[in-house]
Amino acid sequence: MLGERNKILIETIKRLLRRGSYARLQKILSKIHAADLSAVFPSLSAYNQRKLFDLIDDQEKRGIVLSELDEDVILTLIEALSVEDLVRILEYMPSDDGGALIRLLPQEKADAVIERMKKEGAEEVEGLLQYEDDTAGAIMIPDFIALNDEMTAKEVIELLQTQEYKDIEMPFYIYVVDENNRLVGVCSLRQLVVVPPATPLKDFMATDVISVKTDMDQEEVAKIVARYNFLAVPVVDEEQRMVGIVTVDDVIDVFREEATEDILKMAGAGEEFVETKSVLRSTRIRLPWLFASFVGGVIAVFIIAHFEESLKQVSYLAAFIPVIMGMGGNIGIQSSTIVVRGIATGRINIRHLWQVVSKELLIGLILGGIYGLILATLAHIHYNAGIVAISVGAGVASSMAIAALVGSLLPMIFARFEIDPAVATGPFVTTSIDILSVFFYFQLASFFLGF
Amino acid sequence: MLGERNKILIETIKRLLRRGSYARLQKILSKIHAADLSAVFPSLSAYNQRKLFDLIDDQEKRGIVLSELDEDVILTLIEALSVEDLVRILEYMPSDDGGALIRLLPQEKADAVIERMKKEGAEEVEGLLQYEDDTAGAIMIPDFIALNDEMTAKEVIELLQTQEYKDIEMPFYIYVVDENNRLVGVCSLRQLVVVPPATPLKDFMATDVISVKTDMDQEEVAKIVARYNFLAVPVVDEEQRMVGIVTVDDVIDVFREEATEDILKMAGAGEEFVETKSVLRSTRIRLPWLFASFVGGVIAVFIIAHFEESLKQVSYLAAFIPVIMGMGGNIGIQSSTIVVRGIATGRINIRHLWQVVSKELLIGLILGGIYGLILATLAHIHYNAGIVAISVGAGVASSMAIAALVGSLLPMIFARFEIDPAVATGPFVTTSIDILSVFFYFQLASFFLGF
Repeated sequence: MLGERNKILIETIKRLLRRGSYARLQKILSKIHAADLSAVFPSLSAYNQRKLFDLIDDQEKRGIVLSELDEDVILTLIEALSVEDLVRILEYMPSDDGGALIRLLPQEKADAVIERMKKEGAEEVEGLLQYEDDTAGAIMIPDFIALNDEMTAKEVIELLQTQEYKDIEMPFYIYVVDENNRLVGVCSLRQLVVVPPATPLKDFMATDVISVKTDMDQEEVAKIVARYNFLAVPVVDEEQRMVGIVTVDDVIDVFREEATEDILKMAGAGEEFVETKSVLRSTRIRLPWLFASFVGGVIAVFIIAHFEESLKQVSYLAAFIPVIMGMGGNIGIQSSTIVVRGIATGRINIRHLWQVVSKELLIGLILGGIYGLILATLAHIHYNAGIVAISVGAGVASSMAIAALVGSLLPMIFARFEIDPAVATGPFVTTSIDILSVFFYFQLASFFLGF
Repeated sequence: MLGERNKILIETIKRLLRRGSYARLQKILSKIHAADLSAVFPSLSAYNQRKLFDLIDDQEKRGIVLSELDEDVILTLIEALSVEDLVRILEYMPSDDGGALIRLLPQEKADAVIERMKKEGAEEVEGLLQYEDDTAGAIMIPDFIALNDEMTAKEVIELLQTQEYKDIEMPFYIYVVDENNRLVGVCSLRQLVVVPPATPLKDFMATDVISVKTDMDQEEVAKIVARYNFLAVPVVDEEQRMVGIVTVDDVIDVFREEATEDILKMAGAGEEFVETKSVLRSTRIRLPWLFASFVGGVIAVFIIAHFEESLKQVSYLAAFIPVIMGMGGNIGIQSSTIVVRGIATGRINIRHLWQVVSKELLIGLILGGIYGLILATLAHIHYNAGIVAISVGAGVASSMAIAALVGSLLPMIFARFEIDPAVATGPFVTTSIDILSVFFYFQLASFFLGF
């Protein structure tokens, strides 16, 4: 449904841009939800992206659209924007996305924007820039409500109705702080309307507040929000003073981002999404991982060369290299994927090393036995040579068993040493499986054929 | 931090279980957050899982713990529970998780539980069982607030304070319905406290409510919630009558689940997480995908056998099979992973087929050129035979270019025909790359060597 709607919208906008019907386009733009509008941009050319963005009158909508776009589209758009435009738009952007936007600007322009915002009394954005990327501090928003514990429910509700508090993005919780701004309690907006109006906050607030530090990794923050089903989690500094909140909508973005990162890392295609980036950059990111597999392949050349005599006498041994490598490689990917994803989602406990690995090894032995038997039978029928059939069958079986072992063991070991296991799946697992498969195959063949 | 905390908790609980210090354990259990407690279960043996669950006094906590656990742990626990226990626990479970739990029971026990609940006036759970797995209907909760548009803000707040409404899980929004229960508007809990108390709902409700149908796929629902940053989205039936809401915390679960599914499917390791399941079941799930790659390998045997004469004369041609297959396979995985994940996250538009594929092909040609040149140089140094060097270099280059082409083209085509592209990455891509790589390598070698 969402896809269908996008498609119609994209086609309408493209048609109107082509015809230059800007007045009609502006009218349509004013009616579309900013989130729908931002989904249109990736399908347009850079020229049309800028044109369309220009046609959005409403600075608030411009801010929301910008905060929903991917980095590469943002880069295209902000290049064409003046410092004044940027300051206007930043006012309307959630400040976590605003901070990210400023990071994308060239240093000089960023300084000019911050200078200008400071003059106008917006100290929020600069504050956000002080935190490392991908930490709680970088994704938090400073719009929260923190009050004294003596205030009553009625007073709080009245306060929420004042102009000052109307701009708070998502006031799910009322945080309670002491005179030093240290977080001491929390109550939900909902409790506020269900308790008798005269009750002070301290009588119904929860005092076991779970908070996160500004430097906590965003993935960790996301896990906490997900585990406790929070709508937002408070962020505190070293002195336990409250400085912001991370909201659930940003947590969704973190999870999607991290899942994509894991998938790409496992395939050795870099950490960030590179499809929309330039060919040269993609090439550079993918080159090193391929190099690991290249080195593995070259080692295999020497291993096989070592068995050249066997090959000369029984040349069809070579014909089975692809099936033996392929079966090992594939079961290895299965094992390592299951283990890597299991560790990431918490389904696999890294302390259960032998339990996990021995299970994978058992699966590898069973599957290796099945396919080894089938391949041996086929080889026997085709070449009518029992010894070759045995060599080939044993080659597949050993390759699959080794692959399941290596594929599950390596990520577990990496995780134990706190190295990201998603990275290990790529170069190390496939390369070592390739080498080991070929080595054992020829070793077994030489043994059975008596060379 | 979360990990550290888990570890300490797990060790404490295990120690107390080992010592049989049940009284102390019960005291600790009563103090731990249900979400933390549920994280302990996967690390325990089945026996201890049941023991620990037995020690939880509070039925509400039991319900929450159960709703956070994975299927296999739930299966272990519910086996030992009586119909009465189940009914008590289900009362305290969010009804979407309750529905999932009932689906896990043997038919007879499920019927007994439903019978018993019906007698006690709980019609919710049965209602949930009528929807297909993984649809909006299956993950929605029926606890929402739907009121008439004439009610004033003050009346609504008073209503929220009554006993009946205190049990609603998360009342972020007040939905407004007409006399036929059809959804006509929505307002946030927040607006309720900021408008003047006498304002009727119809004066400040939003009328352009975005809702989803009961049969919509959960992934689609999740995308809508994420796109508009909703806390909940209303679910309506065919007649636009409101029947439930899907909340943002369930959406987080959907995204994590779908990411895991995609990753596993891409590795040909089934759709669901199988690590915790039995060896035989895992074997069965992984067997068919390996079969596809087996067939590909056997085809490669015949291709190479066809070039047996070339191999007999230049036996070291075989030594390069692994590096040529490996390089093709790896760049193919990179390309297909980028495309599959790009389609899933909306970064790649399937209508841009040639743009995406030609970019991947270009990257394949560049990387193939680089590695082809290196390998040819190495081969020339080692074997001192220019023609062999050219064959081997051309083999790697063609294999990598073909792999990038196939790896990006197949998922795009699958997606166009609305076949899940994650499935295509597995068997089709790797198998066809294996076959094509080997075929072109020997074809090129025969050509250059003049056989």
